[in-house]
Amino acid sequence: MITDESLEKFLDDLAGRAPTPGGGSAAAVIGAIGAALVSMVCNVTLGKQGYEGVEADLQAVRDESEIVRARLTALVAEDVAAFDSLMAAYKLPKATEEDKGRRAAAIQAALRRATEAPLDCARAAAEVIELARRASEQGYTGVISDGGVGVLAGYTALRSAALNVYINAPSLKDRSFADEAVAEIGRLLEFGAAESDAVYRLVRGKLG
Amino acid sequence: MITDESLEKFLDDLAGRAPTPGGGSAAAVIGAIGAALVSMVCNVTLGKQGYEGVEADLQAVRDESEIVRARLTALVAEDVAAFDSLMAAYKLPKATEEDKGRRAAAIQAALRRATEAPLDCARAAAEVIELARRASEQGYTGVISDGGVGVLAGYTALRSAALNVYINAPSLKDRSFADEAVAEIGRLLEFGAAESDAVYRLVRGKLG
Repeated sequence: MITDESLEKFLDDLAGRAPTPGGGSAAAVIGAIGAALVSMVCNVTLGKQGYEGVEADLQAVRDESEIVRARLTALVAEDVAAFDSLMAAYKLPKATEEDKGRRAAAIQAALRRATEAPLDCARAAAEVIELARRASEQGYTGVISDGGVGVLAGYTALRSAALNVYINAPSLKDRSFADEAVAEIGRLLEFGAAESDAVYRLVRGKLG
Repeated sequence: MITDESLEKFLDDLAGRAPTPGGGSAAAVIGAIGAALVSMVCNVTLGKQGYEGVEADLQAVRDESEIVRARLTALVAEDVAAFDSLMAAYKLPKATEEDKGRRAAAIQAALRRATEAPLDCARAAAEVIELARRASEQGYTGVISDGGVGVLAGYTALRSAALNVYINAPSLKDRSFADEAVAEIGRLLEFGAAESDAVYRLVRGKLG
């Protein structure tokens, strides 16, 4: 599993000539970092004097952010698998008409998978942004900057995943799926831009 | 070394109740991801037909981005060490006047270190943004989205590092150092905002 490798090895693999892991996996890692920071803000705040009133909500935020983090961590490997299946489909034989038909179908299936992975990543990243807002509004002021980094990481994961949807969507023959994917990305980006900007300003304000 | 740990373990530690690793280390990792993606765009492009004219510059970009990546990777651990030394300084005895003087000096030294680490991270992240621009302008179109993710990662690392400078700078007694640090962060953020926006639009345009 790619996430069992050392951070150093992951960075080396990212930098290398091989196409995977690439920007899609990087987006998922950055989103998972954002989710982890949201959990940290909650974990540090829970049990602190003066924060009794927000315990219930921060517990809920932490539980949700841990679920989102697991989804994003799984997407690091899924993005590699989706890209590899696309590369494998392109290499299928195309000598006969039957070959060609089979190859085209395999490419379309792989393209769909390679669009769904970043779409899922974008959805999860939008949740990170929303959770980072709740954590930053209510969390212990001593770790408020971590909430700020969390929201920035979530927004970058979202914008990065969007780029990967934009690459693959145009080649999809299923236009209704492709158009809906691009439209959903547009809505998520609009939400993410406004929300992450508001949270960053809130955090910056609290830092004095 | 923290970067020898698995990605999964790093994320678990980030999410945990312990204050380190925190947002400062997360910023350095995100910056290193950006640098790695810049290197990848160069590595994939070098040797490709039709890109002979940009080889020399992309080789230079790749060499620089690998140096910046090593700096950012080292800052993941340095941020933890700086924060730990600050915590240790706060725990020093303060019974006598001599104790108090020694403790205050240790806190100031640790605060300076905890300001220099994110300042260095911000400088390196600004270089990632600049290198991502050169890689995205000249690199192979098939990996252009990776250049886009690289610039977003660089900008998020810069903004995240800035938050960590803003936390520590107000407590520094050396006002000229603190003011210059905050002023430099302001200049880096201004550069990063304009440059990353331009690169993102360039990449988005090339994706069609």
